[in-house]
Amino acid sequence: MEQFLQETLNNIRKPDRDAMAQALARQESLAKPPHSLGKLEDISVKLAGMTGRLYNPVDRRRVLIFASDNGIVEEGVASCPQSVTLSQTINFTRGLTGVAVLARHFHTELDVMDVGINADFHQTGVRDVKIAHGTRNFAREHAMSREQADRALQIGIEAAHRAADDGIQIIGVGEMGIGNTSTSSAVLSTLLGLPAKQTVSRGAGINDAAYARKIALIDAAIARWQPDPSDPVDVLMKVGGFDLAAMCGAFLGAAAVRLPVVIDGFISAVAALCAYRLNPLAAAYMIPSHASAEKGYRLAMEAMGLEPMLLMNMRLGEGSGCPIAFELVAASQSVIRNMATFEEAAIDDGYLSEIRGNKTFLGEA
Amino acid sequence: MEQFLQETLNNIRKPDRDAMAQALARQESLAKPPHSLGKLEDISVKLAGMTGRLYNPVDRRRVLIFASDNGIVEEGVASCPQSVTLSQTINFTRGLTGVAVLARHFHTELDVMDVGINADFHQTGVRDVKIAHGTRNFAREHAMSREQADRALQIGIEAAHRAADDGIQIIGVGEMGIGNTSTSSAVLSTLLGLPAKQTVSRGAGINDAAYARKIALIDAAIARWQPDPSDPVDVLMKVGGFDLAAMCGAFLGAAAVRLPVVIDGFISAVAALCAYRLNPLAAAYMIPSHASAEKGYRLAMEAMGLEPMLLMNMRLGEGSGCPIAFELVAASQSVIRNMATFEEAAIDDGYLSEIRGNKTFLGEA
Repeated sequence: MEQFLQETLNNIRKPDRDAMAQALARQESLAKPPHSLGKLEDISVKLAGMTGRLYNPVDRRRVLIFASDNGIVEEGVASCPQSVTLSQTINFTRGLTGVAVLARHFHTELDVMDVGINADFHQTGVRDVKIAHGTRNFAREHAMSREQADRALQIGIEAAHRAADDGIQIIGVGEMGIGNTSTSSAVLSTLLGLPAKQTVSRGAGINDAAYARKIALIDAAIARWQPDPSDPVDVLMKVGGFDLAAMCGAFLGAAAVRLPVVIDGFISAVAALCAYRLNPLAAAYMIPSHASAEKGYRLAMEAMGLEPMLLMNMRLGEGSGCPIAFELVAASQSVIRNMATFEEAAIDDGYLSEIRGNKTFLGEA
Repeated sequence: MEQFLQETLNNIRKPDRDAMAQALARQESLAKPPHSLGKLEDISVKLAGMTGRLYNPVDRRRVLIFASDNGIVEEGVASCPQSVTLSQTINFTRGLTGVAVLARHFHTELDVMDVGINADFHQTGVRDVKIAHGTRNFAREHAMSREQADRALQIGIEAAHRAADDGIQIIGVGEMGIGNTSTSSAVLSTLLGLPAKQTVSRGAGINDAAYARKIALIDAAIARWQPDPSDPVDVLMKVGGFDLAAMCGAFLGAAAVRLPVVIDGFISAVAALCAYRLNPLAAAYMIPSHASAEKGYRLAMEAMGLEPMLLMNMRLGEGSGCPIAFELVAASQSVIRNMATFEEAAIDDGYLSEIRGNKTFLGEA
């Protein structure tokens, strides 16, 4: 394994148990039945474990968007033309896409990166970290070289470091890449040892024949290239994509710099699973967002023991679930910071003692 | 049926199909795969149906909190003393409780009403609409008279009208009332014809014996009073509470004034189901929030064909899920208003045409 990757994996620390215990004690002191705010409480405890601090403001938010093309589209697996990867990437910078609109609504920055779009262009607001003009067609050859996979991972790790250096307090991981549900299903099938029919959703605008072809292609590629499920980098290299590999790097980098990182939908969850397989401690820094309508999503999340917070039937990708999840994390911080403790909530106003004959003390039962 | 109630039921209009079609057409024109933003799209269409307008800002938000005591607590069914109803009601006005903290976070007003707290008090910020000092113990007698049930319904209807008159654009329906999971289970069991063991959750701090007693009490009360499932007001009167009846009124009132209304957790869902049974058109004005950890919640929602948007394991009540849901509704409005159409997203920059040899047009596939 490359040294930069090994170092990142080694830098991922166990959650801070003392800070988690402190956050839990604070939640239990707040004037409500035990755990009645559910995940709003859990998130505050998890964040304490990540950072070692009781309170973790998330006012500065960023979605990392890794844009890349996938050679597999040659096989007709996608319902959109490849050119949409480029046009939507440019539209991110214009504030016009789903994630851009939601990011603006929820006070979130975008860091848009060209990891491998199949076009030469320059656009203000798109960071040029292009590895190649798209991956190769994994039905015919490995999607990329091991060196390219390493480079993509490094790009993702660096993006997480950059966020931390910029004072960002929470990140999300999104993507744009026509054909990346195919690469994600191929990676997921390999990691979980499942046939493609269990990890491929039909998606919009795909007919029966195209759906069957997509499944057959993925099963055949896995049989042919024999990606090693115990080596996620091998899997990403043979049947993955630059976007997926960079996203995996972003999850690892976030964990290494102790930055909370939100999983978006299916593709993001598969990248998170690659990170988790490289170092299971990475899951302690991950926060789920919405349950993607793609059927592989649930499989990837279950493999990490994570459950989504939102049931929105979304499947846009782009990182569009992240800005919403940031707001839920922010709400968890409002609760742990601003709710009254049982002691503070005790009512002893004189007139109340008078009318009731004794102190009304919340939670005395 | 009382005339005011009949009038309210008659005033509930069918959703505006033209406005819904317009919203759906707008969503389909936006640069994303069809329905890929899921419920963020659905909500915008539903809101258009409610108001008849394409765009429905929800900047002005209010949670209605109906506070009341329940005579059934005499039977030892609750884990908190009755005095908590009063102390938490006062704490709402101090910004200290869960819903108060979340409301502040999400720019939401509270309208706190004393519908039947078992204490005499005056508190700035608590509206005195007290019907009685708590309901009676439904294990021994009807919870309230028909006149009291009507009065509670009217209080809720008036609260919805007041919100509309104040320029509020979305409301949520919450409560505070020790013992109201018992009344809610009793009402739900009656409406759905289910034994209490299917509608009663154990809850926090209740042991095996208390749990069994709670179930037996509810089954016995339903057998004794024979509330009429086809007459929700009869059910509320015999085994319900002032809070539940007023909340039912709020759902009906919201529908009558065409105001979107958010369902909080279990108790709120049971009140919504009463409203739905009085006029099924009321469901067209309801927006779910979170899936309560109380097991009766799912039953009530399924009976109305509604699905929650949030999986937060919350069970605090108070209306605490509503401020979060308001933000999801607001996000739906950002999407329908601010996303680019396919036409606007078309990339034709000259230099792109040059490098690609043709226009890159999103969604041409």
